[in-house]
Amino acid sequence: MADSVEEQQVLYMYEELTDEEIAHEADTFGPLTASVRDLVEVTLATEVDGDDVRRALEHIEAAKTLLSKQTRPHPFGVRFNASGSKRAWGNAVVGLRNAIAPPVRINREPDGRVWADFELGMAYEGPAGLTHGGISALVLDQVLGEAAEHGSAPGMTATLTLRYRRPTPLGKLHAEARIDRVEGVKTFVVGHLAGPDGVCVEAEGIFILPRWARSGDGSGAIPAPGSA
Amino acid sequence: MADSVEEQQVLYMYEELTDEEIAHEADTFGPLTASVRDLVEVTLATEVDGDDVRRALEHIEAAKTLLSKQTRPHPFGVRFNASGSKRAWGNAVVGLRNAIAPPVRINREPDGRVWADFELGMAYEGPAGLTHGGISALVLDQVLGEAAEHGSAPGMTATLTLRYRRPTPLGKLHAEARIDRVEGVKTFVVGHLAGPDGVCVEAEGIFILPRWARSGDGSGAIPAPGSA
Repeated sequence: MADSVEEQQVLYMYEELTDEEIAHEADTFGPLTASVRDLVEVTLATEVDGDDVRRALEHIEAAKTLLSKQTRPHPFGVRFNASGSKRAWGNAVVGLRNAIAPPVRINREPDGRVWADFELGMAYEGPAGLTHGGISALVLDQVLGEAAEHGSAPGMTATLTLRYRRPTPLGKLHAEARIDRVEGVKTFVVGHLAGPDGVCVEAEGIFILPRWARSGDGSGAIPAPGSA
Repeated sequence: MADSVEEQQVLYMYEELTDEEIAHEADTFGPLTASVRDLVEVTLATEVDGDDVRRALEHIEAAKTLLSKQTRPHPFGVRFNASGSKRAWGNAVVGLRNAIAPPVRINREPDGRVWADFELGMAYEGPAGLTHGGISALVLDQVLGEAAEHGSAPGMTATLTLRYRRPTPLGKLHAEARIDRVEGVKTFVVGHLAGPDGVCVEAEGIFILPRWARSGDGSGAIPAPGSA
């Protein structure tokens, strides 16, 4: 376990980027990723014949060749800069650079409640015509985990319990979560996923502050560079 | 609820395709989807500058234009043909035409145990450098649901409980599930997700046979066309 914990800590990176430089990266890679998200959907929906598929494939391969000229060999990780900006751009739910992510944009209320309105297209299907039960779990894990965040440190999921009250449609959905109680390093969180007809999935989770993020003062703050 | 149940039943479609025609479609759209999966990963990993990103974006838009000439307006659904071939090609975990799906290929043992070996790339990240806890839930929901399948009818998730025993790495993973017991329309399933160092996530689920799929003989068989 020691190796993976060390490797994981490395991927919670402090980086010397200004907010302006980060905004520039978002302007460069945000539209690219959004375009790939659309491509995922149309790849699933298309009914064109083999010739158009072959030509589309040539374009996709050309795009891959251009983007492959220089690549990062490791996952994106979670990155912070001096002003406290947090980038989890590789995250499978909220990642700006991850075409698998819907992406879900998290909102935080002053009372600690966390919520998100988002839309799931046909690529999130499980039972015919419905949102995959595991996709509901994926989004709820993220939203509950965000509610559990303690300072700037992540909550690692310890348990997650999901009760499916009615089928979850595709389309416009709402998720929210709040802390129920905190016991030491364990944070108990509750939340739900709702569609136009009401709550579809209820969730309860216990999230643990990772060992490396437990500073002596209990604030859960990411150690500043050099302070470890 | 009546509308959504009817709509869902429509998307469990019987179709007049031979196994050869289905194989031809797989040969056409399988490689296209695989290429888009690679594009998702390289879009997340790329460190090229703005010019290459712009040119890649042009190719992606060109591919979308070609594939958008004719599209299906509704989700793929789950399709069956006369020989019993089942196509859930839009499914977010196993879908051959879904670039979000790793895809996971399900294996069934004669004793009913279901398992899958698969690999998760950096697009499935949650905690820095690790598999997203919700992605573990997504795959386990699918694998447990497959174990719960009764005849050719799907199991709809009623509850899913996940215990995260250790961080789940990215890379090569193994998932498996088996039925613990059946009580009427409820099937109790247990399973787990494991990495190279052992079990990472344990799961328990209760799956319900959908009302429309409950034939009088209890077999869970999809009604033949016209027999409803």
